[in-house]
Amino acid sequence: MTFDELLKNRRSVRKYQDKPVAVELIQEMIRESTLAPNAGNEQPWKFIIVNNREMLKKISDESKKNILARIAANPDDYAKKYQGMLENESFNVFYNAPCLVMILGLSHLKNLSVDCALAAGYFMMAASSRGLGTCWVNLGTEIHDPEMLRELAIPDNCTIVAPIILGYPENIPSVPKRKEAEIVKIIR
Amino acid sequence: MTFDELLKNRRSVRKYQDKPVAVELIQEMIRESTLAPNAGNEQPWKFIIVNNREMLKKISDESKKNILARIAANPDDYAKKYQGMLENESFNVFYNAPCLVMILGLSHLKNLSVDCALAAGYFMMAASSRGLGTCWVNLGTEIHDPEMLRELAIPDNCTIVAPIILGYPENIPSVPKRKEAEIVKIIR
Repeated sequence: MTFDELLKNRRSVRKYQDKPVAVELIQEMIRESTLAPNAGNEQPWKFIIVNNREMLKKISDESKKNILARIAANPDDYAKKYQGMLENESFNVFYNAPCLVMILGLSHLKNLSVDCALAAGYFMMAASSRGLGTCWVNLGTEIHDPEMLRELAIPDNCTIVAPIILGYPENIPSVPKRKEAEIVKIIR
Repeated sequence: MTFDELLKNRRSVRKYQDKPVAVELIQEMIRESTLAPNAGNEQPWKFIIVNNREMLKKISDESKKNILARIAANPDDYAKKYQGMLENESFNVFYNAPCLVMILGLSHLKNLSVDCALAAGYFMMAASSRGLGTCWVNLGTEIHDPEMLRELAIPDNCTIVAPIILGYPENIPSVPKRKEAEIVKIIR
C-alpha cells in the first residue's frame, strides 16, 4: 500500500467483523512499530496483546467503573462528556473489537508518552497496510484491580500510553474533514 | 512509496545536501500530517516553518545557551550527556539542515504531546515518501528570548512538542538494529 493510500485508509474504526486476528500477524506489526523514531534510541516501549473478547469485556467493565467513579469525584473531569455512554451497560469501550494491543512503558521516563505515541502511529499504519482497522481508545487505560493488573502483567512502575483496538473493519470510514492546518508563521 | 519502503527509508537524518526545500512542498506535508489520529478529534496542532539557515543558527545558539544554563543549575539534568557537544561552538543542534518545522499547541491540553507526536510521525513519513529526510531534535525547544519567541510567533500559552529538521539527505542511514520487541503478555 502506498503512503497516499495509507493516509486514506488509516481511519479510526469502531465497527469490526467477527473475524479473529492471528497473533503472528500482530507480532509482525509490533516488530514494525519498533522501527519508529524515539528519543535517544531508548526504545522504551513494551507491548501487551489481548486477543480475547471475554478479557476485553472485563477490561472495559473495569475501566468504565473507574472512570465513572473519577467523574463522580470530580465533575470537571475531562471524561464527563462520556458519562452517559459509560453508564450504558451494553456499551463496550472497545467497540466489541476482537483484539487490543497496549503500548506501555516505565512511568518515570521523560519521553515515554511521545515515544509510545510514535510507535502507536507506526502500529496503526502497519495495521492499515494489511487491511486491518484500529482505534486508539483512551477510555481503556483505567485499570486499578490488582488481580487484573497481574493477569495482564502490567508492573506497578509502568503506564499504559496507547490502548489500541484491532480487527478487520466492517468498512473503512471516509476521509474526515480536517480543519485547515494552522501554520502560525513561515520564516523564509 | 509502499509502507515497507517507508519503514526502511524513514531514518533520522543528520547530514543534508545544500539544497533548499520548497515551502509549498512543506505545506503539502503539513496538510497530510493533520490526517493523523488525535484525541476527540481536537486537532490541537499548530505549525511553524523556519526555512532559513540563519534563523536556524540563531535558534540553535539560543537553545544551546539555555540548556547549558539548565545543566549548570542541575547536574542531574537529562541533557548532561550532551554537555560536551553543546559547548562546542561549531555544533549546530539542527545539523545545518536547511529547514525546521515545529509542531506546537496550547500547553494546557491534556493530550497535546501525544497528538503532536502522532502528527510528527505522519510528517516524517510524508517527508520520506518524497525523498526528504527528517530528524526530531528535542535540543531545539529551549527558546526563552522574548524577541525570538515573538519573531517565531510562539504564544506564551503554547508548548513546542516536536521540532523536526527537514532537507534532502546526503544519504539514507541503513536500518538500525532494534532490540527485540518486548511483548510482556499475550492473552489468547
